[in-house]
Amino acid sequence: MTEVAIFGAGRIGKIHAGNLARQPGVRLKWVVDPDGAAAGALAEAHGAKVADRDAVFADRSVGAVVVASSTDTHADLIERAAAAGMAIFCEKPVDLALDRARRCADAVKRAGVHCLIGFQRRYDPTFAAAKARIEAGEIGAPEMLVVTSRDPGAPPVEYIRRSGGIFKDMLIHDFDVFRWILGDEAETVHANASCLVDPAIAEAGDVDSTAVTIRTKRGRLCQINTSRRAAYGYDQRFEVLGSGGMLQAGNHAPTEVVASTTNAVSRDLPEHFFLERYRAAYASEMAHFFAVLAGKEKLRTTVDDGLKALELAEAATTSWREGRIVKMA
Amino acid sequence: MTEVAIFGAGRIGKIHAGNLARQPGVRLKWVVDPDGAAAGALAEAHGAKVADRDAVFADRSVGAVVVASSTDTHADLIERAAAAGMAIFCEKPVDLALDRARRCADAVKRAGVHCLIGFQRRYDPTFAAAKARIEAGEIGAPEMLVVTSRDPGAPPVEYIRRSGGIFKDMLIHDFDVFRWILGDEAETVHANASCLVDPAIAEAGDVDSTAVTIRTKRGRLCQINTSRRAAYGYDQRFEVLGSGGMLQAGNHAPTEVVASTTNAVSRDLPEHFFLERYRAAYASEMAHFFAVLAGKEKLRTTVDDGLKALELAEAATTSWREGRIVKMA
Amino acid sequence: MTEVAIFGAGRIGKIHAGNLARQPGVRLKWVVDPDGAAAGALAEAHGAKVADRDAVFADRSVGAVVVASSTDTHADLIERAAAAGMAIFCEKPVDLALDRARRCADAVKRAGVHCLIGFQRRYDPTFAAAKARIEAGEIGAPEMLVVTSRDPGAPPVEYIRRSGGIFKDMLIHDFDVFRWILGDEAETVHANASCLVDPAIAEAGDVDSTAVTIRTKRGRLCQINTSRRAAYGYDQRFEVLGSGGMLQAGNHAPTEVVASTTNAVSRDLPEHFFLERYRAAYASEMAHFFAVLAGKEKLRTTVDDGLKALELAEAATTSWREGRIVKMA
Amino acid sequence: MTEVAIFGAGRIGKIHAGNLARQPGVRLKWVVDPDGAAAGALAEAHGAKVADRDAVFADRSVGAVVVASSTDTHADLIERAAAAGMAIFCEKPVDLALDRARRCADAVKRAGVHCLIGFQRRYDPTFAAAKARIEAGEIGAPEMLVVTSRDPGAPPVEYIRRSGGIFKDMLIHDFDVFRWILGDEAETVHANASCLVDPAIAEAGDVDSTAVTIRTKRGRLCQINTSRRAAYGYDQRFEVLGSGGMLQAGNHAPTEVVASTTNAVSRDLPEHFFLERYRAAYASEMAHFFAVLAGKEKLRTTVDDGLKALELAEAATTSWREGRIVKMA
Repeated sequence: MTEVAIFGAGRIGKIHAGNLARQPGVRLKWVVDPDGAAAGALAEAHGAKVADRDAVFADRSVGAVVVASSTDTHADLIERAAAAGMAIFCEKPVDLALDRARRCADAVKRAGVHCLIGFQRRYDPTFAAAKARIEAGEIGAPEMLVVTSRDPGAPPVEYIRRSGGIFKDMLIHDFDVFRWILGDEAETVHANASCLVDPAIAEAGDVDSTAVTIRTKRGRLCQINTSRRAAYGYDQRFEVLGSGGMLQAGNHAPTEVVASTTNAVSRDLPEHFFLERYRAAYASEMAHFFAVLAGKEKLRTTVDDGLKALELAEAATTSWREGRIVKMA
Repeated sequence: MTEVAIFGAGRIGKIHAGNLARQPGVRLKWVVDPDGAAAGALAEAHGAKVADRDAVFADRSVGAVVVASSTDTHADLIERAAAAGMAIFCEKPVDLALDRARRCADAVKRAGVHCLIGFQRRYDPTFAAAKARIEAGEIGAPEMLVVTSRDPGAPPVEYIRRSGGIFKDMLIHDFDVFRWILGDEAETVHANASCLVDPAIAEAGDVDSTAVTIRTKRGRLCQINTSRRAAYGYDQRFEVLGSGGMLQAGNHAPTEVVASTTNAVSRDLPEHFFLERYRAAYASEMAHFFAVLAGKEKLRTTVDDGLKALELAEAATTSWREGRIVKMA
Repeated sequence: MTEVAIFGAGRIGKIHAGNLARQPGVRLKWVVDPDGAAAGALAEAHGAKVADRDAVFADRSVGAVVVASSTDTHADLIERAAAAGMAIFCEKPVDLALDRARRCADAVKRAGVHCLIGFQRRYDPTFAAAKARIEAGEIGAPEMLVVTSRDPGAPPVEYIRRSGGIFKDMLIHDFDVFRWILGDEAETVHANASCLVDPAIAEAGDVDSTAVTIRTKRGRLCQINTSRRAAYGYDQRFEVLGSGGMLQAGNHAPTEVVASTTNAVSRDLPEHFFLERYRAAYASEMAHFFAVLAGKEKLRTTVDDGLKALELAEAATTSWREGRIVKMA
Repeated sequence: MTEVAIFGAGRIGKIHAGNLARQPGVRLKWVVDPDGAAAGALAEAHGAKVADRDAVFADRSVGAVVVASSTDTHADLIERAAAAGMAIFCEKPVDLALDRARRCADAVKRAGVHCLIGFQRRYDPTFAAAKARIEAGEIGAPEMLVVTSRDPGAPPVEYIRRSGGIFKDMLIHDFDVFRWILGDEAETVHANASCLVDPAIAEAGDVDSTAVTIRTKRGRLCQINTSRRAAYGYDQRFEVLGSGGMLQAGNHAPTEVVASTTNAVSRDLPEHFFLERYRAAYASEMAHFFAVLAGKEKLRTTVDDGLKALELAEAATTSWREGRIVKMA
């Protein structure tokens, strides 16, 4: 039986706790959250107990931690868990500051613990199938990747202000998708961007619409377009052109109903937001984590992946701020 | 805490047991199956124990039973559970013989227990959404229903021999869909059929392809086409033409990948068979059962629905055997 | 240069005249229509002249006639053209009365002229491609055909009264599709029907919604569903299940625009009605006619096809009126 | 009757001649082509005569010319036709050299003749419907445009060598689509590119895969991705994200057949190349040209549009060659 502690009892914490509970041989022991009521409710739902950080790290029976707390706590928690020899499942990003994230990665490596970074898109059935089919050679050599990534609506400006900016907050997932799907690293990054959704976002020093181009070391091309607001919901697609064809990974919809009325032939909007769209992905991700701990699978989204995506986010931020093409190391 | 016993530890029994385990306040206590190994494995997976029938019905703490055993055991188990005042979740059909099924229904009514018959299609997200949208008036008055229902492959002839024939074994679900979607009862039934898939099925006295037409009491029309074999997988669709438009309920696919290669633009085949296609439906169905027991929902697929579908299956069998249109009572 | 006369300067006459004009080596010489203004306008548009029937049949230079006039004129015109040794392109049906249609067919055969009956659906790019792929063995042996055939709205009751009834007026095309796609003849026909769209149609002695089942001599099954009214437009589809898969022939839409807004993901309605949907089919059909006259192709929709479809329409009418399954000769 | 001369009797010349022939009140009088046999065949097909340039420009009865000859002849022919007061329908580009193109545009303006530049995509039913729906406000304010533009295969390197490079040869259409759809002008252009299809293209000094980003004066964003080779055929799509939703303009396919076999559910590849995909567009474009000459419509693709697209192509070429973001005047 692996005993687990979870940090964060919010939306995503609940999802992870629910998935945890379904793993055979795994038990949620501790829930930590500054919001005592939230912590209590989540603990009760899974027969766990509320604790504070120190208690968790002092408990030698804890084999793994799930970090689903606010971004500014990630680095500390990773380092403490690593020091305690606990396996780590941590939501992205490692940290908003690249230096700090690097120190974290070093700590993880020194400790020799597993540390999964929550790039859940890699575990999405559609995205994962596309990747597997590329690997199987179905479209020959990949040449060009187009990623579309749009949220149904912008978060509160208060959130945006502490988010690290759109490139670190939102595109970090797309940068990971880029690296994963093309199996290649960036040579140059160019980011254009605009504030078209809400002027308050510009006042907060951020943008809400971006158009990023990456050229890989092998000369492959990637374009990413994102927006904080798609009126029709959460839009998460990519397409890969290869020498032998194209694979498109599309949105999931709640049902397969098609309505033909006097105006149009219409289908469902895509699943509303990440909790719905990536429900299956979150479940697979957690199953993978424990399969890794059991020695049955090899860790697929490592702390290094977290670093690489963060480096791209930083390069994109620079490109946009300075109006230039940024060359990667 | 509701204590539950399950009869049947096969494919569908495992599905139901898993769904049971996720209901709050519900505990699987007993597993009954003539195959002791299967019973033991399922019991162990859910912290339950193996028992025989008599032990289950003698245990006054059992509040509900799930009947997922072979068809010939359904009627007995329903009657015994009803006599014991236990709520019943039973896979279709109630029984292959209409008389026996009617006696069962009477027993359930006399006992005043809840008895859900497993017409899981009503709980499928796509089918249920289509129904809700019809009810909401989106396509005006329903006029015509076309049901397509095809299995990926024929079962062993040994199974077919004891199945009660294609109309009772396979179309019983389609007859229930017909009643549910059109909200109307049959006036006449005409069934044509053929043995096109496997001559051994004809030798066993059955057919493998059918074309059924039902006219409702209100003059609405329904066509059902079925086959024991669709080379592309499990094909479960219907479409309803109404005075104001059409709703089509389509197949679900495992992923939303689209491949464009030198030959074609292609998508995934539909989910392979009922366990995959109706996975969400089985989960909803079980949640509904316990919501009914908790007094929160009204039972949606009753023993009467089981009887009505069986009556249609019997009428269709007669129509096909005697080559005539059958008038319903 | 082949000189051609056209009978009928209405909607479909104009389509045929336009397609005629595009055939190399073909010239429209005469236009005949009781409505002199219509005849004059069509003649002028194509550099032709207005004439009456007798003048056309007396003109030995006329090599072919296109019959696009009202149904009650077809048989006479076919017989006179046959007697004059002219090739014939005639809209369906040959005649509403089977006897008369048979005499026409005899006259055509005796005269040894080509007589194309306007089952234009066989020339539709989608339908023709489906047929070709079936022939090529893509789905193995065809087993079941489902035909959906719905008009955007009912014609005036005045029209319906003289139409010969829905089976001869509307389903005659579907009966031809059945014979063509399954490559087989009917053994039994069962037609159910209802008046759901407009009670005035029932008062005129007709129905507006039908559900027909045909069993072929080889045991294959066909279901046809039709309605005089689909709120979303002209719905012309079929699907064929074969031992190795399924081919579906779908509707054509004016554009490939997909809109994602706050309500739905929506596409264009199908092409509005037969003039739009079968525009390409009418052009191919006319090209085929002259290719037949030039000895380059073999006639694909013969007067015998017209007879066979009419026999099925008559059988369906009988089945519906007498409430019984009709056995074909 | 408007008398017309056509320059160029190749693939696209034949298309334009055929469309010309269908315009009422228009007659093809002269065909000019260095390949005498091609000129003769095209002339004969339309009852026209072969001539040389001088004869055409000396013929005062000629009201309009169609320029479908090689790119290096466009500027001369435009200037001579303008000087002769003839209306001009010219394939893109005006000229590969911006200076020369500007002089052409001046000549056209001085002469006061109509000059349609063949950006046929604006006349495509799908693209035009998308544009009209944006104008109608269906998706609110446009914010982001993603253009996908891929050829089925690279042309001979010999052609590429004289093509002016991929940005002038291929993307010029996409630059026009950008201006038309967003209704805005470029502020900055960034082009990345690669040679992934055929190293011979790199040896010829060109690239075959591009990723272009344009920011408009109003801060809108556009990404264009192109390739000289899509194994699945001609891929011509765009999607526009607006404040109220998204419109996607997709590919056209030859038929609406869907095949479900043991491997996949598949549809037709897109129309193979521009002659097929833009068949309807070419017809509409020609009809528009003569509607402009008749004073019924306002010219939609002017010589200025030709200049603006060329300026973008030049900026993109510079951006790519110099590895920098180019600011437009």
